[in-house]
Amino acid sequence: MADIPARTEIGVTTGPIRGSRKIHVGRLRVAMRAIDLEPSSGEPPLNVYDTSGPYTDPNAVIDIAAGLPARRREWIVARGDVESYDGRETRPEDNGLSGPDRSAGVPQFPHVVKRPLRAKPGMNVSQMHYARRGIITPEMEYVATRENLGREKLREYIRDGESFGAAIPDYVTPEFVRDEVARGRAIIPSNINHPESEPMAIGRNFLVKINANIGNSAVASDVATEVDKLVWSIRWGADTVMDLSTGRNIHDTREWIIRNSPVPIGTVPIYQALEKVGGVAEDLTWEIFRDTLIEQAEQGVDYFTIHAGVRLPYVPLAAKRVTGIVSRGGSIMAKWCLAHHRESFLYERFDEITEIMKAYDIAYSLGDGLRPGSIADANDEAQFAELYTLGELTHRAWAQDVQVMIEGPGHVPMHKIKENMDKQLEVCGEAPFYTLGPLTTDIAPGYDHITSGIGAAMIGWYGTAMLCYVTPKEHLGLPDRDDVKVGVVTYKLAAHAADLAKGHPAARLRDDALSRARFEFRWRDQFNLSLDPDTAEDYHDQTLPAEGAKTAHFCSMCGPKFCSMKISQDVRDFARLQNQGVEGFIATGPTGAEAAAASREAALKGMAEMSARFKEGGGELYLGAGGRERD
Amino acid sequence: MADIPARTEIGVTTGPIRGSRKIHVGRLRVAMRAIDLEPSSGEPPLNVYDTSGPYTDPNAVIDIAAGLPARRREWIVARGDVESYDGRETRPEDNGLSGPDRSAGVPQFPHVVKRPLRAKPGMNVSQMHYARRGIITPEMEYVATRENLGREKLREYIRDGESFGAAIPDYVTPEFVRDEVARGRAIIPSNINHPESEPMAIGRNFLVKINANIGNSAVASDVATEVDKLVWSIRWGADTVMDLSTGRNIHDTREWIIRNSPVPIGTVPIYQALEKVGGVAEDLTWEIFRDTLIEQAEQGVDYFTIHAGVRLPYVPLAAKRVTGIVSRGGSIMAKWCLAHHRESFLYERFDEITEIMKAYDIAYSLGDGLRPGSIADANDEAQFAELYTLGELTHRAWAQDVQVMIEGPGHVPMHKIKENMDKQLEVCGEAPFYTLGPLTTDIAPGYDHITSGIGAAMIGWYGTAMLCYVTPKEHLGLPDRDDVKVGVVTYKLAAHAADLAKGHPAARLRDDALSRARFEFRWRDQFNLSLDPDTAEDYHDQTLPAEGAKTAHFCSMCGPKFCSMKISQDVRDFARLQNQGVEGFIATGPTGAEAAAASREAALKGMAEMSARFKEGGGELYLGAGGRERD
Repeated sequence: MADIPARTEIGVTTGPIRGSRKIHVGRLRVAMRAIDLEPSSGEPPLNVYDTSGPYTDPNAVIDIAAGLPARRREWIVARGDVESYDGRETRPEDNGLSGPDRSAGVPQFPHVVKRPLRAKPGMNVSQMHYARRGIITPEMEYVATRENLGREKLREYIRDGESFGAAIPDYVTPEFVRDEVARGRAIIPSNINHPESEPMAIGRNFLVKINANIGNSAVASDVATEVDKLVWSIRWGADTVMDLSTGRNIHDTREWIIRNSPVPIGTVPIYQALEKVGGVAEDLTWEIFRDTLIEQAEQGVDYFTIHAGVRLPYVPLAAKRVTGIVSRGGSIMAKWCLAHHRESFLYERFDEITEIMKAYDIAYSLGDGLRPGSIADANDEAQFAELYTLGELTHRAWAQDVQVMIEGPGHVPMHKIKENMDKQLEVCGEAPFYTLGPLTTDIAPGYDHITSGIGAAMIGWYGTAMLCYVTPKEHLGLPDRDDVKVGVVTYKLAAHAADLAKGHPAARLRDDALSRARFEFRWRDQFNLSLDPDTAEDYHDQTLPAEGAKTAHFCSMCGPKFCSMKISQDVRDFARLQNQGVEGFIATGPTGAEAAAASREAALKGMAEMSARFKEGGGELYLGAGGRERD
Repeated sequence: MADIPARTEIGVTTGPIRGSRKIHVGRLRVAMRAIDLEPSSGEPPLNVYDTSGPYTDPNAVIDIAAGLPARRREWIVARGDVESYDGRETRPEDNGLSGPDRSAGVPQFPHVVKRPLRAKPGMNVSQMHYARRGIITPEMEYVATRENLGREKLREYIRDGESFGAAIPDYVTPEFVRDEVARGRAIIPSNINHPESEPMAIGRNFLVKINANIGNSAVASDVATEVDKLVWSIRWGADTVMDLSTGRNIHDTREWIIRNSPVPIGTVPIYQALEKVGGVAEDLTWEIFRDTLIEQAEQGVDYFTIHAGVRLPYVPLAAKRVTGIVSRGGSIMAKWCLAHHRESFLYERFDEITEIMKAYDIAYSLGDGLRPGSIADANDEAQFAELYTLGELTHRAWAQDVQVMIEGPGHVPMHKIKENMDKQLEVCGEAPFYTLGPLTTDIAPGYDHITSGIGAAMIGWYGTAMLCYVTPKEHLGLPDRDDVKVGVVTYKLAAHAADLAKGHPAARLRDDALSRARFEFRWRDQFNLSLDPDTAEDYHDQTLPAEGAKTAHFCSMCGPKFCSMKISQDVRDFARLQNQGVEGFIATGPTGAEAAAASREAALKGMAEMSARFKEGGGELYLGAGGRERD
């Protein structure tokens, strides 16, 4: 099955992922991706978790100017606790049109909802609120189906892993999802004004998720690029996307992104608030910030990063650091606190913010504004002081049944990673942890997707629920489309490595299917089962471009004359003979001569066959590293 | 300082690494690389470990056809325990000239030493033998100087790490090196016929090392390509190189590689032996294998991978595996054992092999022929049965004072990695562990440098002494020059992350220097201090190509109007005021108003200055992700 790159006017990649079919499962028609294997495998299709939305569905009509279908809207309205109202009017400064060097340039989204939804007075529409009242929402049911993927094959496996106290069930029921949300151990980010989203859960007892950052900037991006990056990042597996735009046209760019996003969208509202005051942090006010929250809430942002843990007394703790404050939101608030010599308005107004969150079901992503920006600053006093405050705020948000996750570092050497996880679990009552990497060394700019992928895999294993990707351009420049893909795939593999190590019951299915394909030289299956079939096939073709090489039953390492696979078959024959009563001959030696001879004869016959097949295929001989590791 | 790519006839990259100077330190003139920092930093040059040999020394004359200077020869001869003799004649089959589809094509190296060295009768020339007799060799002294790098700055640091029982000293003395070699905890691979090598140590209490694999193959490589890959891989930091050639011209290719290599060279002799019998494993004999060992010993190979742990009784244990036997050497021996129904001649003749090793000081790299090739097969009975035998063989080699390291997996999920390390340390008496990755998931072909970089960093932290690189082409095709570089840099960063986590006393110097450069917007220093200055600068320039951007005192994230660095300076001013007697004003509030006002005034003044500097620089405004992490 080939990639079908159809591009709409605004230019996004559509068509199936190579070798995959879109399927819809269960009552709620949960989207998944089925990978069909070669008939010779005798294996059923492997279904995998799918974040790519309708873009990879050949039957879906994609119209970026219309946005995605609002499939959650009926669920939301049916609960009877929301009302539509005349939304806030968009103002010039929402798009950065107040400053001297600013100009429009992004068209308004053509179908803006003029009457957004919010909770009726006195109501709370958060998933946590429903969960705590014992209600299983369609969102929870959808999550259960999605997360259960493949677990019907569980009986083949003995569960094996170290989950450090997580409680991953053999089978995910809607009731389990409800319970996890009620306890605050998982969130389902789902703003009622983002009905286009496909529900997903972030929590330690679910699959580890990843986030991709995109965002407009004044030099290098426009709305078409950002929508394209959104669709591109979810194609490769981003579970949520943060729009971190800081330039002009923030409001309109966000509208295009949300209307076309099947995954939850997060933002850092203080960025836009700062634009509204011309970039002067000390001019920020609670009123401007509050108004920005409402603006974004009505658009449908699913989670807000709020740096409410950067308190005035903690700011001086960053003085001794090698890299000071590296969080943009954190330094904005530190600046404000210092300039006014006042406690942060985010901290002081926290309960008022929470009131807004619950009226739209926006989840908190409590920002780590004092996270370390270097190995030298890891796990210091400033960082942990803030973490304790985030724990306090978690409990205050939970008091109003508002969903919370906690952001984490940053730059942390391997031996200090686990302390971050352990403290977070303890202080924040098991609220989901959402970390940036962490980067395990500072010395590899250009490779920080890898320095951080190491830390991400480890902290994911220890219990982090979502990993925020880092691209190769980190610290150096703006990620392009290729960087976004490399970042997403790197984080998908880190998240998967974490799921495996935690002993997630279904994680190993894909590894095993791919390894069987590898062992049996089903090259197409090997490509299609991989996280990035296009790159896998491309790399294979760089050495062996011939079509025949993809069906060759030997690899580029040993060629047809000598084959590890064949030897392993001999080994199996040998073991079978042993079980048929030739037991013990290894110990006694000569008595097993018949078995050895039989094995040898079988081997010679097999090699002759292979040699004949090779000659039929054109007889090209190649030797060198390839399908098997060398030595 | 620019890269000066001068190419000799055979075509290798020479000239300094960008921003670095070659220096030679101490009595033995140990080669290092000094990175000069901008005068504004007020910091001395940072010296870093250097594996690149004379190729990065502008004062060195490089002549590939002549080979490198034999600087160790005088040390070797001075010991009085070697003799030169008429070496083995090269035969056609050494270069694969016996088969039907084979032809020459690689010129003979022009200056082959016709009279190699070996130990005088009854003598043992291994570094371990000297060490055990209390002799500190120049090789040991060289290693001590090399490993001590930067430790004179130790007093600035409180050591911090978790080394899982390693014994990394504050300062490395030649006596410490001797003791580690004597105990078998470290090896210094140094064949007396490879006097061109710069001594280096592989051991848990030294810096974590990395190996790069190169090798000739019939389709894609020639000797020029392989010598180029050798020089290219050591340029980026490979500590040893394995020549895994399997095609024609193995003998001559190896000669060119060894004569031009300043790092130890490893091989898997069974590969060449197999070529000599036309690729038919069962036709291998002890005599052919022994002759191949002598052939390679005389050429100067520093360590041999010997799969002597693949014993006949273990072969059936691989029958139940998902991926059987994936080691090429392992499957060759399994095939031989099955075909003859006999115990492996490598196991039976082990002490005879050891006799050869000690006559040339070749180190064992005991191969893990039964390593797992998939997550499903990790830590199974076959793997550990072999490991126990490797432990037995370690002690047998040590009985003759021959240096040993142990090869390890492979494919291992994160939660099973530590068990590998713990068992290896216990069973093999702390002999250095040398692992391939391990890969932490099977599902990302095309990204296996990363799936394995994760495992490599972790097992390095746990105690592995050398990490064998994996390139992005693993499982798919033959690595090209770019793949070699990506593999090497990925493994350098993994090894460094391991050193940091182990609490190596000098590892953090480079992270801290780079982070200070980052914080102070010394872009050139940031590039030059990184593992790959060329890529770092290239990525930076993709977003901000202007020369001025490299001296801009703000980053592409926030632009000049808002700057985390400036805010951190405010924070420092603020903290200083506190220390000057304005203590406690945070708690009491208003009493600190002067401090806040002073801080604010300083901030405004600083911002005005920055703004002026910005306008001088051309006034280009850019916003978006870059020098700082976002949010």
